[in-house]
Amino acid sequence: MRLFRRVKRVGLPPGTVQYVGQTVTQPIQVQTLAYGPETVVEKKDLSIEECLKVGDGAAVSWINVDGLHDTAALERLTSHFKIHPLVIEDIVNTSQRAKLEDYGGYLFIVIRMLDYDEEKQEVSSEQLSIVLGPNYVISFQEIPGDFFDPVRERIRSGKGRSRSSGPDYLAYMLIDTIIDHYFVVLDKISADIEEMEDELLEKPGRELLETIHGLRREMILLRRSVWPLREVVARLERAESPLIRPGLNLFLRDVYDHTVQVIEGIESFRDLLSGLQDLYLSTISTRANQVMKVLTVIATIFIPLTFLVGVYGMNFEYMPELKIWWAYPALWGVMGAVAGAMLVWFWRKGWM
Amino acid sequence: MRLFRRVKRVGLPPGTVQYVGQTVTQPIQVQTLAYGPETVVEKKDLSIEECLKVGDGAAVSWINVDGLHDTAALERLTSHFKIHPLVIEDIVNTSQRAKLEDYGGYLFIVIRMLDYDEEKQEVSSEQLSIVLGPNYVISFQEIPGDFFDPVRERIRSGKGRSRSSGPDYLAYMLIDTIIDHYFVVLDKISADIEEMEDELLEKPGRELLETIHGLRREMILLRRSVWPLREVVARLERAESPLIRPGLNLFLRDVYDHTVQVIEGIESFRDLLSGLQDLYLSTISTRANQVMKVLTVIATIFIPLTFLVGVYGMNFEYMPELKIWWAYPALWGVMGAVAGAMLVWFWRKGWM
Amino acid sequence: MRLFRRVKRVGLPPGTVQYVGQTVTQPIQVQTLAYGPETVVEKKDLSIEECLKVGDGAAVSWINVDGLHDTAALERLTSHFKIHPLVIEDIVNTSQRAKLEDYGGYLFIVIRMLDYDEEKQEVSSEQLSIVLGPNYVISFQEIPGDFFDPVRERIRSGKGRSRSSGPDYLAYMLIDTIIDHYFVVLDKISADIEEMEDELLEKPGRELLETIHGLRREMILLRRSVWPLREVVARLERAESPLIRPGLNLFLRDVYDHTVQVIEGIESFRDLLSGLQDLYLSTISTRANQVMKVLTVIATIFIPLTFLVGVYGMNFEYMPELKIWWAYPALWGVMGAVAGAMLVWFWRKGWM
Amino acid sequence: MRLFRRVKRVGLPPGTVQYVGQTVTQPIQVQTLAYGPETVVEKKDLSIEECLKVGDGAAVSWINVDGLHDTAALERLTSHFKIHPLVIEDIVNTSQRAKLEDYGGYLFIVIRMLDYDEEKQEVSSEQLSIVLGPNYVISFQEIPGDFFDPVRERIRSGKGRSRSSGPDYLAYMLIDTIIDHYFVVLDKISADIEEMEDELLEKPGRELLETIHGLRREMILLRRSVWPLREVVARLERAESPLIRPGLNLFLRDVYDHTVQVIEGIESFRDLLSGLQDLYLSTISTRANQVMKVLTVIATIFIPLTFLVGVYGMNFEYMPELKIWWAYPALWGVMGAVAGAMLVWFWRKGWM
Amino acid sequence: MRLFRRVKRVGLPPGTVQYVGQTVTQPIQVQTLAYGPETVVEKKDLSIEECLKVGDGAAVSWINVDGLHDTAALERLTSHFKIHPLVIEDIVNTSQRAKLEDYGGYLFIVIRMLDYDEEKQEVSSEQLSIVLGPNYVISFQEIPGDFFDPVRERIRSGKGRSRSSGPDYLAYMLIDTIIDHYFVVLDKISADIEEMEDELLEKPGRELLETIHGLRREMILLRRSVWPLREVVARLERAESPLIRPGLNLFLRDVYDHTVQVIEGIESFRDLLSGLQDLYLSTISTRANQVMKVLTVIATIFIPLTFLVGVYGMNFEYMPELKIWWAYPALWGVMGAVAGAMLVWFWRKGWM
Repeated sequence: MRLFRRVKRVGLPPGTVQYVGQTVTQPIQVQTLAYGPETVVEKKDLSIEECLKVGDGAAVSWINVDGLHDTAALERLTSHFKIHPLVIEDIVNTSQRAKLEDYGGYLFIVIRMLDYDEEKQEVSSEQLSIVLGPNYVISFQEIPGDFFDPVRERIRSGKGRSRSSGPDYLAYMLIDTIIDHYFVVLDKISADIEEMEDELLEKPGRELLETIHGLRREMILLRRSVWPLREVVARLERAESPLIRPGLNLFLRDVYDHTVQVIEGIESFRDLLSGLQDLYLSTISTRANQVMKVLTVIATIFIPLTFLVGVYGMNFEYMPELKIWWAYPALWGVMGAVAGAMLVWFWRKGWM
Repeated sequence: MRLFRRVKRVGLPPGTVQYVGQTVTQPIQVQTLAYGPETVVEKKDLSIEECLKVGDGAAVSWINVDGLHDTAALERLTSHFKIHPLVIEDIVNTSQRAKLEDYGGYLFIVIRMLDYDEEKQEVSSEQLSIVLGPNYVISFQEIPGDFFDPVRERIRSGKGRSRSSGPDYLAYMLIDTIIDHYFVVLDKISADIEEMEDELLEKPGRELLETIHGLRREMILLRRSVWPLREVVARLERAESPLIRPGLNLFLRDVYDHTVQVIEGIESFRDLLSGLQDLYLSTISTRANQVMKVLTVIATIFIPLTFLVGVYGMNFEYMPELKIWWAYPALWGVMGAVAGAMLVWFWRKGWM
Repeated sequence: MRLFRRVKRVGLPPGTVQYVGQTVTQPIQVQTLAYGPETVVEKKDLSIEECLKVGDGAAVSWINVDGLHDTAALERLTSHFKIHPLVIEDIVNTSQRAKLEDYGGYLFIVIRMLDYDEEKQEVSSEQLSIVLGPNYVISFQEIPGDFFDPVRERIRSGKGRSRSSGPDYLAYMLIDTIIDHYFVVLDKISADIEEMEDELLEKPGRELLETIHGLRREMILLRRSVWPLREVVARLERAESPLIRPGLNLFLRDVYDHTVQVIEGIESFRDLLSGLQDLYLSTISTRANQVMKVLTVIATIFIPLTFLVGVYGMNFEYMPELKIWWAYPALWGVMGAVAGAMLVWFWRKGWM
Repeated sequence: MRLFRRVKRVGLPPGTVQYVGQTVTQPIQVQTLAYGPETVVEKKDLSIEECLKVGDGAAVSWINVDGLHDTAALERLTSHFKIHPLVIEDIVNTSQRAKLEDYGGYLFIVIRMLDYDEEKQEVSSEQLSIVLGPNYVISFQEIPGDFFDPVRERIRSGKGRSRSSGPDYLAYMLIDTIIDHYFVVLDKISADIEEMEDELLEKPGRELLETIHGLRREMILLRRSVWPLREVVARLERAESPLIRPGLNLFLRDVYDHTVQVIEGIESFRDLLSGLQDLYLSTISTRANQVMKVLTVIATIFIPLTFLVGVYGMNFEYMPELKIWWAYPALWGVMGAVAGAMLVWFWRKGWM
Repeated sequence: MRLFRRVKRVGLPPGTVQYVGQTVTQPIQVQTLAYGPETVVEKKDLSIEECLKVGDGAAVSWINVDGLHDTAALERLTSHFKIHPLVIEDIVNTSQRAKLEDYGGYLFIVIRMLDYDEEKQEVSSEQLSIVLGPNYVISFQEIPGDFFDPVRERIRSGKGRSRSSGPDYLAYMLIDTIIDHYFVVLDKISADIEEMEDELLEKPGRELLETIHGLRREMILLRRSVWPLREVVARLERAESPLIRPGLNLFLRDVYDHTVQVIEGIESFRDLLSGLQDLYLSTISTRANQVMKVLTVIATIFIPLTFLVGVYGMNFEYMPELKIWWAYPALWGVMGAVAGAMLVWFWRKGWM
């Protein structure tokens, strides 16, 4: 995840619609799904203009927009629905925090879709903007491809409450799906952390250290992404807007519980990773200490002995010991005694 | 404890009942206990269908379900009591946080039963779901075997208030028993921590480090399990629901006190374990420093001496010292003086 | 202080009176002090039965019970005063947090008496339970011996408000005395911390490390003991019960101030001890670095020189240098130059 | 950024206007911009006296003052607008926290303009004081040069709401511009942090350590600067003053969102930098351990061998081994075996 | 600053006036300043009895008492003004937290005066107690000498609002002066911190470590002193007492801002000092690593060479190499190659 995404509009008037993501050349793609208890009409690959006519008369129209680079087209769409320029600015400015804004006639919800790349151990994040009106839901994504196929399938098949409920239920289903996917992300991360715990005990190395650091970094950024979501869902649940119908709060309470669980998960991952880094440091210290003990034992045994044999390697003419026949074996005895005494001493100190 | 348990339902419609625990083949077992001030009727090993007829006319019916894998049977049970599908979803999805949900006609309480394996120093956790209705309590456990035998015995014997009170008192007794068992878990952990404190001062080793880390990890997860319980009990005590009768709040205040004591215990264990890890690191550093002092003292005394004896081991033809008869003993004197001066210096520095 | 004290009643019905402290054989001792503005009647070494008759007609009766092991006797006492079984359970279960419970006709206050053993540097803790009724105060202690003699003396002498006020003032005096004693405990601990600060700068050793760790541990447990007291006193000061007469809140505000000062003291001791441990680690690192510098300087100067003298100790037949008469003094010159260059280099690096 | 800026007025009466910044000799410069929906009148390089007449009759007058050293001139200006002496004191005392004060007839807003010097990796800070009256905005800057040219250009061109709105919209535009610039600052810092992450993995050195420390320091000070702004904008948004017209709160909510994003950014930078320092320490420890392993391997292999060859360099007359013809090659064999055994041992320990 | 100051009254009845500071023999000194819009009467070196008559008829009487050891005299003074015994107890018990107590007819304010000794790098603290009545202010100081001369001068000269306002304005001026002096203290500390930052990069040593630790300690204690002041000033500003006249809240808001700035300053100093200690540790580790690299490079190059020359210093009779005329120069070649290979290897590893 990127550390920080600059909102590129210093000094521009508020409401300026300027896309900050990657430049894409393919046109914006729109899919629509207009449905009621009885009917479903689905269209794909529409242009902005075509989608505006969709859904007249349907109970709920879901307009999903993939691609945000064609700001002129987006403005045509939003002006059709009388959406405030500040909303459009936030939609294309894809570095928003999760938020909920009540504009009276419609709610504007920003939520971040997360994915986890197990190879690079990086979390990626995409902004989903939802405009929830009295009989429509418009969702804006930066890149084609999402997790919403099960939602579409449920609407097509008409099972459960999906088709008999209003656009608030659709918005709920989208948010629920995204937060369910957070669990997948956390599940993958937890598997990585458990793997690192095992690796740390076996071979703590430089790469592992970098991996731990990298995951800690991701957790810091992930927390920043998910934290504001809690308030968004809590406010939805409190049903402050008439656009949220009474029966939905039971479901939103469920989503709120999941959000809290995700945040608690991230917090405990942060604690665990911080504990892992401490463990790494302690392990390195323990190992360094063992290495140093070996060095000290070997060196302190042999350094005095080497001195002794050096003494009798001197070429002084008058060294009486050199002439004594038992001096050589006696020296071996002395050296053995010195070495033995040292070994006993080290053993008592617990260094061996 | 597992780091994170994935809720396996990305994209499934809400209310989908899908069991996420281990797959078990034996059928679900149900025990019932229908009692009033005068009567007790106890039945065991019932099927779901049989238990539905139990308890008609009794003041309180307690239906305890062991095993959650047969979701169809569970749905028959809950539809009989008109329980919301979201509740059943949470019952079988056994990775819930502790929570209390008020559905009007009944309360849904989730609480985690904890146990501590002293061998592996791991906390295990099982979800207990309680549905508290006007004249029944249904409890759902994943695995047969629980701590509730004393509760059953009290009801059978009819001592105290147990049989003259309503289902809220039964629910209270179940929660109280579980939280009492938290004390057992914390007591065992505290014994382990005290043992580690002693071991740390005697022989700080790699295994101890791993044990400390492992317990810190368990504490992080334990805290996540117990923390939300505080609010659950507080809300029960505030008696927001008519299902909780007035006299019960004195008892629930007691349970609340215990919950707070458990949380404070976990917090102080976390602090203590973190302190132990610091102490471990400090101890290792102190030891490494002592090892290095020994190495340095030995090496710095003998390295210059070895140089000196090396000098007079050279084979130059013109080395006048070699011919002098007192040179050899004089060298010993010089070496003794050098070593002595060094020893004094080290002693002054406090290295010996 | 013990890490955690198990409440030994898993599965027992609530209200079960079971003593958890040490088993004592001597009988429970009761002292009574019945007084009014004009009269004082004091009795000692009563049995439970004898004390029940005491104080009829007196404005205030203070019954002090030393020893909690005879639960049957305690139940006779409390049933005489119509005290709820949950209260008695908490009295004998001497591991309660400080708490205040309002039972309508009487208040139940638990507070922990602390003492500090300067030898072992350990805080000891005893539970004092106070039942404050309309015209009586009953205090329960586990062990004979307390800090209340000045309170008794004040009542006997009848100075100040002590005898003209009601039982709430007596309860206040008991609490005030205990919290005053907290200051003594903190004062002793602060003296120990200051001593450790001095010792750390002079001779940081393994024992000091253990002492710091031990005190940190005590602080964690001490904090857990004192923290809930803040709310107890705050609630007393808010005078929610008619048992607390209006004039007392000025005095209770004073007690509240002291409690906050104690808590702040404990918090800053924790910070200071944590700082001391950091300082210890930094000191050890600094020392290790100095030791290593000495080793490095000595070793790196002499190792090359020893190599050089080793070269001219070889026995090759054709080593022309050996025959040159000025080679030996020249080698001394070379070695002096090498050593000098190294010394200059080390000096520049700031290692000497 | 400076650690702390002393408010130089100990003992001076409140309301004393004393400039604390650098002494400047050039006169104060004033620019005015008086505009309404139809007209724009812009004047530059005015003296204080000239600017007072500006803007009579215009819907909005913006008086921008560059330079605060001529306190007498400032007092003439503020007394003309009947501004409280405490306000003027705060304007010239350029070390204020961000704040909003409602004086009834006007609002006084202090906000800090930030800039980041990528060379020195230092954040610089300048105080902007805004007095927002019913039909005027007076802004005070310490140094000429600001980020407000886009705002001026928008007013001149009359695009959007800029000229048809009141002075509250102008104040909003100024605050919005400053907070937009915070994003630029954070963006530059995030680039520096990412660079440091890469550098840390490649060559962790002393300079990098100093850079990390310097940035952590800046983050602490930056946080202190930005944190109070959150409340300022929140209070503006709550529109407590009639000077803030109803329609503005949508825009201020946007500014509030940005402020929160900036604060979250700073917090996560702090976490990241703290993580980087941990990583640095761990990396250094890992490297030290590797260095020590190399030393230990080389030393422990050769020290025993050197001892052995020292033995046969002794000059004892009676050393039988010296006469045996196969002793020399045998010794090579022994030494090879010793070295080989050690290598195997090290390899098994994972040191090679 | 002392770690903890014991309140020396365990078991004494509440309201006991016992002085806990140093014992002083000189009598208590009182100065009075009675003034109104028109008149100022100033008296010095009064006894307690003389000062009681002062100020009859004056709008405001300021009685400043230096010295608290003569508790009997103080009690005469306070009983004249009908001040509660608990207040007098707090006045002489000079280890109070900052606090504000409303006794109906008068306010009792405790605030700590701070000073910083740049030599010892220690903060000293003195208690100032203020009793603010309807037409008088009594201030109590432990030691003669204060920062209030500018306040006295302002009253004498009658400039500004000083003489036309009531005693609440006088109390405000005293508090404001003290908090202004906090800025001086923080300013000096910030200079010391900046000096330490420079020193740390140049020569990190043991003394610097002690200085950092000492300042951290002072910050912990300083925080404890200043933190409660925030609430004191906030409550004054909320003007809960009729003794605080309406116009004063603007000035008190200013004081509140300064208090918050001081607290934020202390917090950031704590963070900075903690960062400095981390930096110190990292620097020591970096240096230790460099020292070790030098040792390792020198030792690992020369140890194998010394072994080699040791080999050819052996006295075996059958060592064919010794007879070969090119063996000696060849050995030099071999040794050069070994040393060169090692240097290349070290250079590649980045150790040189």
